[in-house]
Amino acid sequence: MSKLRIAIAGATGYAGEELIRILRQHPSVQITTLAASAKWDRPVPVGEVFPRFAGQLDLPVESLDPARLSRSCDVAFLALPHGVSMTLAPALLQGGVKVIDLAGDFRLKDPALFTRWYNLAHASPAALGEAVYGLTELFGEQIRKARLIANPGCYAASVILACVPLLKAGLADRQGIIVDAKSGLTGAGRKAEASQMFAEMNENMWAYKVNQHQHAPEIEQALTASTGAGTLSMTMVPYVVPLNRGILSTVYLRLAQPCVWEELDRLYRDFYRQAPFVRIRPKDQWPKVREVAGTNYCDLAFAVDQEKKTIIVMAAIDNLMKGAAGQAVQNLNVMAGWPETTGLL
Amino acid sequence: MSKLRIAIAGATGYAGEELIRILRQHPSVQITTLAASAKWDRPVPVGEVFPRFAGQLDLPVESLDPARLSRSCDVAFLALPHGVSMTLAPALLQGGVKVIDLAGDFRLKDPALFTRWYNLAHASPAALGEAVYGLTELFGEQIRKARLIANPGCYAASVILACVPLLKAGLADRQGIIVDAKSGLTGAGRKAEASQMFAEMNENMWAYKVNQHQHAPEIEQALTASTGAGTLSMTMVPYVVPLNRGILSTVYLRLAQPCVWEELDRLYRDFYRQAPFVRIRPKDQWPKVREVAGTNYCDLAFAVDQEKKTIIVMAAIDNLMKGAAGQAVQNLNVMAGWPETTGLL
Amino acid sequence: MSKLRIAIAGATGYAGEELIRILRQHPSVQITTLAASAKWDRPVPVGEVFPRFAGQLDLPVESLDPARLSRSCDVAFLALPHGVSMTLAPALLQGGVKVIDLAGDFRLKDPALFTRWYNLAHASPAALGEAVYGLTELFGEQIRKARLIANPGCYAASVILACVPLLKAGLADRQGIIVDAKSGLTGAGRKAEASQMFAEMNENMWAYKVNQHQHAPEIEQALTASTGAGTLSMTMVPYVVPLNRGILSTVYLRLAQPCVWEELDRLYRDFYRQAPFVRIRPKDQWPKVREVAGTNYCDLAFAVDQEKKTIIVMAAIDNLMKGAAGQAVQNLNVMAGWPETTGLL
Amino acid sequence: MSKLRIAIAGATGYAGEELIRILRQHPSVQITTLAASAKWDRPVPVGEVFPRFAGQLDLPVESLDPARLSRSCDVAFLALPHGVSMTLAPALLQGGVKVIDLAGDFRLKDPALFTRWYNLAHASPAALGEAVYGLTELFGEQIRKARLIANPGCYAASVILACVPLLKAGLADRQGIIVDAKSGLTGAGRKAEASQMFAEMNENMWAYKVNQHQHAPEIEQALTASTGAGTLSMTMVPYVVPLNRGILSTVYLRLAQPCVWEELDRLYRDFYRQAPFVRIRPKDQWPKVREVAGTNYCDLAFAVDQEKKTIIVMAAIDNLMKGAAGQAVQNLNVMAGWPETTGLL
Repeated sequence: MSKLRIAIAGATGYAGEELIRILRQHPSVQITTLAASAKWDRPVPVGEVFPRFAGQLDLPVESLDPARLSRSCDVAFLALPHGVSMTLAPALLQGGVKVIDLAGDFRLKDPALFTRWYNLAHASPAALGEAVYGLTELFGEQIRKARLIANPGCYAASVILACVPLLKAGLADRQGIIVDAKSGLTGAGRKAEASQMFAEMNENMWAYKVNQHQHAPEIEQALTASTGAGTLSMTMVPYVVPLNRGILSTVYLRLAQPCVWEELDRLYRDFYRQAPFVRIRPKDQWPKVREVAGTNYCDLAFAVDQEKKTIIVMAAIDNLMKGAAGQAVQNLNVMAGWPETTGLL
Repeated sequence: MSKLRIAIAGATGYAGEELIRILRQHPSVQITTLAASAKWDRPVPVGEVFPRFAGQLDLPVESLDPARLSRSCDVAFLALPHGVSMTLAPALLQGGVKVIDLAGDFRLKDPALFTRWYNLAHASPAALGEAVYGLTELFGEQIRKARLIANPGCYAASVILACVPLLKAGLADRQGIIVDAKSGLTGAGRKAEASQMFAEMNENMWAYKVNQHQHAPEIEQALTASTGAGTLSMTMVPYVVPLNRGILSTVYLRLAQPCVWEELDRLYRDFYRQAPFVRIRPKDQWPKVREVAGTNYCDLAFAVDQEKKTIIVMAAIDNLMKGAAGQAVQNLNVMAGWPETTGLL
Repeated sequence: MSKLRIAIAGATGYAGEELIRILRQHPSVQITTLAASAKWDRPVPVGEVFPRFAGQLDLPVESLDPARLSRSCDVAFLALPHGVSMTLAPALLQGGVKVIDLAGDFRLKDPALFTRWYNLAHASPAALGEAVYGLTELFGEQIRKARLIANPGCYAASVILACVPLLKAGLADRQGIIVDAKSGLTGAGRKAEASQMFAEMNENMWAYKVNQHQHAPEIEQALTASTGAGTLSMTMVPYVVPLNRGILSTVYLRLAQPCVWEELDRLYRDFYRQAPFVRIRPKDQWPKVREVAGTNYCDLAFAVDQEKKTIIVMAAIDNLMKGAAGQAVQNLNVMAGWPETTGLL
Repeated sequence: MSKLRIAIAGATGYAGEELIRILRQHPSVQITTLAASAKWDRPVPVGEVFPRFAGQLDLPVESLDPARLSRSCDVAFLALPHGVSMTLAPALLQGGVKVIDLAGDFRLKDPALFTRWYNLAHASPAALGEAVYGLTELFGEQIRKARLIANPGCYAASVILACVPLLKAGLADRQGIIVDAKSGLTGAGRKAEASQMFAEMNENMWAYKVNQHQHAPEIEQALTASTGAGTLSMTMVPYVVPLNRGILSTVYLRLAQPCVWEELDRLYRDFYRQAPFVRIRPKDQWPKVREVAGTNYCDLAFAVDQEKKTIIVMAAIDNLMKGAAGQAVQNLNVMAGWPETTGLL
């Protein structure tokens, strides 16, 4: 059987690098094209860009050329800065290429909301209408038939998986949800910023975009879509902490009806029974980011305090895996009809 | 004028080391005794225990001997494991020595509460009754006259300073308070534990004692005492993150009445007008732990979301300074009638 | 074809964990037994010991029982503290099990030398005589036929690969060799030591066993064996640096005859032509430990200064891979007649 | 007595920040001016640039203006990128201001050598002739009378202090010296470079400028000047390791005549008898960078192997203190006739 031909646009960023790492070992695909935003005057061997791949993958990284991309692949992963894929994806779709977009371009269904959070007019409202939100555990059916996937934001993936069972079961209020989410530094992308120099970030941590992070509306949209009508109110504070990989998101919800830990445990295990990448932790054993680093798992744990009427749910993921490249490949597997875990265990 | 004679018991731990660092340069005191739990068969020069002090301080670290301690100092700092100072302090007080205790032994006024959280019967209820909670910004008057100080826990110091103005002004609900507090590793003390080895903790982070940390009742007690009657309900989740020094505590409260950021700013600036170690950050500039590392400052910032009826307050401190040794010396200054900042700037 | 049955003794250490990670995905083997030194009163699921393996591997970690080990496997990997395998290996060999030992027990051929460096009498001189030094690139022929492999020390693997081509070609003096070798913290093993707590090791680095490291005689022995007669004189200084994985060894040698970089490049490329895990870096591009992290590669680079008559050779490896578990699996592949890279790319 | 007026040019870099930290507490000086390269359209309060100084120092950071600088200070510290101070210093000297330059501009006495290593023509050969190399322990007499100080490079300070006693005593060969020097990241200065982003540098280390670092000729010049005639041959390899502060330099020399550790110990202690910032470590106790972090100390240790005819000398310093700002203030103290340690303990 011939292998599916894959292109990775944005191959020189962290998510792109991770896509190369995974797809290089995926049994049913072949990476045919690596492309990056046009700063190359000549194709550069990937082993020069990433010496770790030297001797393992013999492909050049080329300048991004939509026409070439269309011809060279069946599926394109776009791991580009926000705002690029919304102009690129329509051309690829028209060329018969399926697209899995790792940027924020196709996540918010309402173009006005997109504009408000990304400060850009949306270039392709039609494609936006067609895009399917790529959180496999919730939207697997639509993903199977999709041509264009909006891969979730890293914080969003962790928070949505943490909250859906509770909210769907009506165990928690839809108002006053608090999200306190800590991330490693690869989450910020590979670009030279003064604040993210080693000597600034080491022995340091801080919050940013407090109550203003663009993943918040994405989370609200997905939770609304997957748990039924009704608005949500959520306050989200993200942080950078001095490590490379990993997100640890803690969600605080108000208990809507009496319930004990064992019921939550049953609820979550039942909800994620068919989800190979969601693991529920035993009582009082909270997830550590290292335990999911390099994997596509989302580890969940929770506690309930009946007196204080509070539920705590914690989710740990690798921001480059379940939060980006791993989730994207999981979507590819579903789209292609392969087992969901192919190339990911 | 002769200098005040100081003993440090528990001189080999992180807080002890930090006390040495500060007090060595304090203009009005002289360190006369360094003691540690009895694992030494002979006094060891402090420069051997801490090569960083070699050539700077010529004192031995001795085994802990209450009688010797009493004779050799006017004020004793006790930076010992929980449960030791409650038996040691009464003897010192009787010997005419004032005591500043950095452990949890004298923080919870109710012996039953102490037993519940520290799993120990309290050995000195009388001394407990006399002890003053040493958060200078709130209890300066009592500290001035105290013989026995219960220095606050590190998380507690940050959270109390973050919440008091709001709660006192009635701007926030006393129920449903959420505390999400991240700490560096020196907060856990200097002892060899498998989970805190570099190779375990590096590239990792996790929550512990979720909703079960012993600083929670301490915070509730201090907030009740300083803001008037009425119980509080608080959920606290502490974390270790891979850095040495620093606590970043985020407190989420429910807005009790309409208010805007500028009002909060005025409220906090007014409340801490005379507090040289509390700094209020400008709007949308959130504290970074490195900015307080090595200092006795507590940096505060806040945001209010009227729509979501939520207030976010963030506090950054150095856990070994405002969270331990620095706060202890601030208390010493108040007890001795010196300017509060002596030796701390 | 039935799979080779594998036991891992010392499964709870860093090298053991890495062996599990690799062998779990190796296409031709099946892990049948995980054992650890007898501190378990009952077998513990590996997913409890290492939550990262939860849901991926369903095996208990048992107490170490030589008889059980012999029955349950064809090949045993021993990743135990120094001094254990020299008593365990003979029993396994007698039971028909092949042994790959990751400790130092069978590396030094002279029992007296072993005693001098490991401070132990050797318990199995006969097995010692039979053991083959498991650096595949140099001793592949003997490894193919061996029953007992002494897997190289982590520093040793990097230094030997760096030096052999030069010394064999007579381009460098055999005297006055300087080795300056930096290692991450997993190299020290998983045990709670005060000096390796995060808060001690972070923002720190230091040398240890200066000119006294037990890998030095191992290196001298292997270099002598593989480059011909004649003693070597080497000074080695190892360091710990604050990272988890990776060794960067720099070797300084005295130039024995005129030569330019291009000749070295040719020499090394020729020497390692058939070695899939040795990569030679381009001129002036020095290896970074992250580029080999998680891989079994040894990246080499060099410079020659004809005026100063000095050659610099640098080698980067992952201490848990080419320095331990990866090298051990490479040896397994050779012993079993499989391609050397099976399960390692 | 009125205080000496101090200006710091390059106040926004790491060395500038450290100068502010030290000089703010120096009893005999007053910082009057903070300046930085002209990217400010208005003076910015230093508490905005460095929130850690908020509430402690009330000064703006201004654009660099030589005329203003001349009028506002008695001594100017120049912590600017290489190539700036050679044009700035002459104007300041002419204005009667003494200059302590932390860049490389005045370190190499031979303008041709400067050009070869810094790739710039020297703009002020006259000033270069007048400049005194500011390693206080060796050149204190000249420093006392100097108007223009060339503060040593960070690696240079550590290596020179490590080698001088040995070479002066003729105990080591002047040929074949090997320097293997590891540095934290603040040594590279505060500028956004892709290779020094946290996510690149964390869990990584690498060598750079192998045998090509500009501190090498500076070391050779100072060692020649302080140990008598005769050329030196030295090979130097510098590395970045993932920590903020600290240099650990290891020097390997060939033993020129029989000698034992105790003789070295006596030699070094005697040589540095009057040097308050050089500490000699006890036998087999090697320096750790944390023990000198934040201090102006240089900790030295050594070993001698008579059989291998090799001497190992190790030096640890804080690259921002003894390697930059601390050393600069030590020079100021000498120039002003104050005790060498003023403001530095």
